[in-house]
Amino acid sequence: MAIAPTPDDRFSFGLWTVGYTGADPFGGPTRPPLDTVEAVTRLAELGAYGLTFHDDDLFPFGSSDAVRQTEIDRLKQALADTGLVVPMITTNLFSAPVFKDGGFTSNDRAVRRFALRKVLRNIDLAAELGAQTFVMWGGREGAEYDAAKDIRSALARYREAVNLLGDYVTDRGYDIRFAIEPKPNEPRGDILLPTVGHAMAFIETLERPELVGVNPEVGHEQMAGLNFTAGIAQALDAGKLFHIDLNGQRGIKYDQDLVFGHGDLHNAFSLVDLLENGGPGGGRAYDGPRHFDYKPSRTEDTAGVWDSAAANMRTYLLLKERAVAFRADPEVQEALAASRVPELAQPTLAAGESYDDLLADPASYESFAPDAYFGARGFGFVRLQQLALEHLLGAR
Amino acid sequence: MAIAPTPDDRFSFGLWTVGYTGADPFGGPTRPPLDTVEAVTRLAELGAYGLTFHDDDLFPFGSSDAVRQTEIDRLKQALADTGLVVPMITTNLFSAPVFKDGGFTSNDRAVRRFALRKVLRNIDLAAELGAQTFVMWGGREGAEYDAAKDIRSALARYREAVNLLGDYVTDRGYDIRFAIEPKPNEPRGDILLPTVGHAMAFIETLERPELVGVNPEVGHEQMAGLNFTAGIAQALDAGKLFHIDLNGQRGIKYDQDLVFGHGDLHNAFSLVDLLENGGPGGGRAYDGPRHFDYKPSRTEDTAGVWDSAAANMRTYLLLKERAVAFRADPEVQEALAASRVPELAQPTLAAGESYDDLLADPASYESFAPDAYFGARGFGFVRLQQLALEHLLGAR
Amino acid sequence: MAIAPTPDDRFSFGLWTVGYTGADPFGGPTRPPLDTVEAVTRLAELGAYGLTFHDDDLFPFGSSDAVRQTEIDRLKQALADTGLVVPMITTNLFSAPVFKDGGFTSNDRAVRRFALRKVLRNIDLAAELGAQTFVMWGGREGAEYDAAKDIRSALARYREAVNLLGDYVTDRGYDIRFAIEPKPNEPRGDILLPTVGHAMAFIETLERPELVGVNPEVGHEQMAGLNFTAGIAQALDAGKLFHIDLNGQRGIKYDQDLVFGHGDLHNAFSLVDLLENGGPGGGRAYDGPRHFDYKPSRTEDTAGVWDSAAANMRTYLLLKERAVAFRADPEVQEALAASRVPELAQPTLAAGESYDDLLADPASYESFAPDAYFGARGFGFVRLQQLALEHLLGAR
Amino acid sequence: MAIAPTPDDRFSFGLWTVGYTGADPFGGPTRPPLDTVEAVTRLAELGAYGLTFHDDDLFPFGSSDAVRQTEIDRLKQALADTGLVVPMITTNLFSAPVFKDGGFTSNDRAVRRFALRKVLRNIDLAAELGAQTFVMWGGREGAEYDAAKDIRSALARYREAVNLLGDYVTDRGYDIRFAIEPKPNEPRGDILLPTVGHAMAFIETLERPELVGVNPEVGHEQMAGLNFTAGIAQALDAGKLFHIDLNGQRGIKYDQDLVFGHGDLHNAFSLVDLLENGGPGGGRAYDGPRHFDYKPSRTEDTAGVWDSAAANMRTYLLLKERAVAFRADPEVQEALAASRVPELAQPTLAAGESYDDLLADPASYESFAPDAYFGARGFGFVRLQQLALEHLLGAR
Repeated sequence: MAIAPTPDDRFSFGLWTVGYTGADPFGGPTRPPLDTVEAVTRLAELGAYGLTFHDDDLFPFGSSDAVRQTEIDRLKQALADTGLVVPMITTNLFSAPVFKDGGFTSNDRAVRRFALRKVLRNIDLAAELGAQTFVMWGGREGAEYDAAKDIRSALARYREAVNLLGDYVTDRGYDIRFAIEPKPNEPRGDILLPTVGHAMAFIETLERPELVGVNPEVGHEQMAGLNFTAGIAQALDAGKLFHIDLNGQRGIKYDQDLVFGHGDLHNAFSLVDLLENGGPGGGRAYDGPRHFDYKPSRTEDTAGVWDSAAANMRTYLLLKERAVAFRADPEVQEALAASRVPELAQPTLAAGESYDDLLADPASYESFAPDAYFGARGFGFVRLQQLALEHLLGAR
Repeated sequence: MAIAPTPDDRFSFGLWTVGYTGADPFGGPTRPPLDTVEAVTRLAELGAYGLTFHDDDLFPFGSSDAVRQTEIDRLKQALADTGLVVPMITTNLFSAPVFKDGGFTSNDRAVRRFALRKVLRNIDLAAELGAQTFVMWGGREGAEYDAAKDIRSALARYREAVNLLGDYVTDRGYDIRFAIEPKPNEPRGDILLPTVGHAMAFIETLERPELVGVNPEVGHEQMAGLNFTAGIAQALDAGKLFHIDLNGQRGIKYDQDLVFGHGDLHNAFSLVDLLENGGPGGGRAYDGPRHFDYKPSRTEDTAGVWDSAAANMRTYLLLKERAVAFRADPEVQEALAASRVPELAQPTLAAGESYDDLLADPASYESFAPDAYFGARGFGFVRLQQLALEHLLGAR
Repeated sequence: MAIAPTPDDRFSFGLWTVGYTGADPFGGPTRPPLDTVEAVTRLAELGAYGLTFHDDDLFPFGSSDAVRQTEIDRLKQALADTGLVVPMITTNLFSAPVFKDGGFTSNDRAVRRFALRKVLRNIDLAAELGAQTFVMWGGREGAEYDAAKDIRSALARYREAVNLLGDYVTDRGYDIRFAIEPKPNEPRGDILLPTVGHAMAFIETLERPELVGVNPEVGHEQMAGLNFTAGIAQALDAGKLFHIDLNGQRGIKYDQDLVFGHGDLHNAFSLVDLLENGGPGGGRAYDGPRHFDYKPSRTEDTAGVWDSAAANMRTYLLLKERAVAFRADPEVQEALAASRVPELAQPTLAAGESYDDLLADPASYESFAPDAYFGARGFGFVRLQQLALEHLLGAR
Repeated sequence: MAIAPTPDDRFSFGLWTVGYTGADPFGGPTRPPLDTVEAVTRLAELGAYGLTFHDDDLFPFGSSDAVRQTEIDRLKQALADTGLVVPMITTNLFSAPVFKDGGFTSNDRAVRRFALRKVLRNIDLAAELGAQTFVMWGGREGAEYDAAKDIRSALARYREAVNLLGDYVTDRGYDIRFAIEPKPNEPRGDILLPTVGHAMAFIETLERPELVGVNPEVGHEQMAGLNFTAGIAQALDAGKLFHIDLNGQRGIKYDQDLVFGHGDLHNAFSLVDLLENGGPGGGRAYDGPRHFDYKPSRTEDTAGVWDSAAANMRTYLLLKERAVAFRADPEVQEALAASRVPELAQPTLAAGESYDDLLADPASYESFAPDAYFGARGFGFVRLQQLALEHLLGAR
């Protein structure tokens, strides 16, 4: 089957993904570091359109200005040589010892100030490179112990930080929006803003909520047992899906960062269906990068790294193919109607109907026969799911 | 130890809690039904101040108007006889077959209209009984299969419903606020608005967000592995803690509804500490009912039901005692300071400081020494947690 | 695609599965009861070969002997009329109030004696009907609270019960083996013998371990986050896979009992591959019934019940088709070799090699170069997984 | 409260626990390495009796013989100076790149041979140091993908390895027993022998099962949502509790390795109660080391490391105090009797009673009234749990 990704597919990869050397809590690296230029070149060859990175991915924490600039220049040249773009940048506020209790919400005020400076500098870089999305994953913003963190103060400090950053990009005229990436736990016992919902609720308390959205990651929501596709739908409903992290996770456990589709396959299918076919008139419901935030398994050598990068894109495209066929199948359309799925798009009240009208409508209550739903008026959801499964299996 | 709950403690119970007869997915009832008057009388004797209920708890689904009124009158008399109040009412949109795909978001429009009517009628009853909080738990609003539910339409219909109800109570002049109760799953595979965060984010999309808050339940958040105390803190931060459901849950599994404190004890301790001592100047951070939404275990007979009701209140009061002692302990205060917990309440920027000032402050970056945090400047969180544990154990 | 189950496929269904009326912890039935004869007839039409049941499924708990016999006779006639067989029977020790603390391990000795009598009677029926497997799911054998159950005594009582039953079938000359069905929790907070491993370890402490094996259920192991296929492989390794329960579960939550394949699809695929292709020389690794223990979703009416029954079998057959193609694909075989999967079947020591020989072999240690595994000798597991995924998707 | 650990309490610590430098998947070390002699000295001062280690903890992987011997000699001197003993040793088969697919069950046969050699050498060291328990945690024995690992071959290779080691210690006359440490996942997606149950079942397939037991770890079982105390009880029942790893875990998530008691406190309480009071006539049910396998939180500096070490022992002793008081309380004894907990220790059949006798006893069935359990004969478990809670809180 000829499935080849092209830049039009808008696939992007974190530099830290293909660059992951295999260190984990129980072992050191199994692979040597990957040079940035090599990463850009190989990703371009594979059909990706974008590269993303944390500042510390490109130049090590504590680099001199000269080293920093050299690495930036090398990246720019590689981008120019390959046509790859940098649609998103993010800041590492979690690896260095100074961030051991977080960045924006460390109990230590001096750390918070340092964190802000690190981010401001990185925003300038984002603007310089034309990145339009600035992701914030607060992986160390949290606690293992309830008494250790005053959550309301932590939210206040997080708000203070994001408000300041919003002012900054506004004043500077940068074309940058922020995307908060939620995660429930790991590396902290509990992380602030643990789910897409918590992040979106927090955003509404900001001074410039319009500048801030979410960057949900498949595995992060699934680590809380939540339905990722449903979370994305709520983010779309609120106009807050600014970016997305695709990967795979097999249930509630440590953060696996598998290849997209190598985790919950049903949910991956419905996600691609939503992103690609869920627009108002069909078509794309989200137009931004399809960003893979995964880790090539520690068992793999360099060949395995590139196999895994290609696998992410190939799986996405296969699922897209399946999802298009699913929507086009007349039997599916009939089954959706039988399940009354489209009926949910109809307002519950008629156009112009008031609650008084509703109260006056005997069909809605007085003469309505709820018992008719016993043993009848089934929703046919199992049949519909089986049709979805068979399309997923390529069996129809 | 003389610990006796009084109405000042504001303990309330759902009629369905002490009234639970023991039916579960693998067995029928093990206890006979509990009469409403008996429930009110016994709860009053035990020191509770409030009773709450679903419409169907008081009068069976499909009751005639006469039966309904008789039961309402019996309840009113029992309240008058005992002094108990009804601070909260809620509607059952999940038990009857007609709600098998939900109420406000059933794919079936006629069901949605019927659900609205059922709720409107119940709001009138809430107003009549002086309940100031109207809880909405959408336990059937969800799906088992991704294709079965258009989540964005479901959110639109939920929004339509809550907007209508907001208009209704406003127009009627009712002193009622709504509280959405999130739950991640069970009885549906995935439930709409699965966490406190998702519910609060949704509320911001309503026409009258000020009328709507959340009713978080201990076990519901913990079923997603989330930290309940942290969720409550975020709800307080947003001014959205309108009501609370206390119970116990032992990890990520089916909804257990154990007695408060019989689940995650550390988290129960920090919760009581937050509710009782987390106010701006210390003292109560939340002033509403301490509502127990639990189930007396199916193994218990009627004596066990009342033992379990008393256990909820007694545990709360014991934890309150421990939490007060924890906050008063000078060693704890010193440890909190050493952990820099109060320092998080200080804004990261000084009063009047701008980002330009921050950028100009070399102490924040250029002369800041992040390496000083390696092997030093520890946060002392383990010691603090141990102090909390020893207070919890009554060992200090 | 012409996929039609036949009795040769050995598909069997619990009477309680298609007979599930939809009651759950938050709602009553949504469908009327299903008559046994109707169940047998419809299952036969759909291509099943077997029916299984709990005693209480066929005749209500507490039935008179006459009622009981009538129902048995009706079943026998239906079996004769359709050719369906009863390969397995099991006893309900969990629904009636008397079993609220369990059957074999209730703290109440009189209950334990009653439970034994109920099971003995049901074993006679199993023998009469020719069932060769007698399943024991101890769903109520457990506790919510650690102090409530002396686990070692519970194990002793469970052992006493199974030893007695083993004597009974041996003395009676019944051709019956027992299969213990593990489950981690629900309806009890923690259930005795929570996983396949715990059950198999327990079996080794019995007087007649050869008579007792396991009946693992997909969802039960996955409720503990365990890999079902791996558990089945360990059961096969120990010769203990006496029966199997197929269904679907979406992660760690309440027991969902979805259609097989409607849960973790990757794991369903590897399971079918193991069962169908994992025999010593390829081919079937397990020859018993493919038993579906699922629940038609509560949203469905009667048509949905039969759609769901058919979906179980169809999904199994589709996955079997995919698994056969996967094993036959030369590229897969090459990838398996590259991943050194077959090399694991080679003993680590050569034939006749002793540990002294190993100690004397410098290639095993002194001249072995572990550093050669850094950045090289990758295992190619991601590529292999991608091949499996693409076969699953029918994309190769 | 004067609670001071002494060597009689048999507290031991892994060298890697206090020596943990804070590296995790998202950040590097936050503390410098800890010297072995310093570790021994400080642990002795704190009242511990034992130190345990992996070979690679004491001398780095790949050390020359000279370096290795120097470190062993330094350790011996420190032990002699302090009186600390080494009750357990274990081998690191998980950190080096060569073990990226495991040790005993790597798909790569040369790796398996190397792993055996590494273990054999370490067993000699264990014998030399007088360690009587040799723990095997197969953290890398597993897979992320079902097709990547032939589980039955993996079990065969694991068996081959343990059989060989059993021959070796037997032939050498070493007084050493093996203890397998189960874990469900992390660092592999799924680990072989994921629970106490799976490990005990596997042991029964060995040639010398009497030489092999389990080393359960609190957090490892709780990562699968399992009740740790119940698992320990089953291990005791089978005579297989050869060693134990104590720590804290807050639910199903990544492996937290918190201080003992900083996780599930109810379960920690019942565990200590079982270990200390669960012997046949009361008293110790397990006499081996109380071994802490935890990690001082990454937020801590060196002072925090030693605070955390002390906290483990102090919490254990506090819980022991509470458990002794719980068992001694007459009201608890009365409540246990009311819950019929001791009745479970009575055999279900009378002495000498056969199943024929049981079948002939009408009281067991024909005249037994199961309906009497409806609404009556409650088990009083909630009251018992509340008594346990109040003892735990030091409130009685």
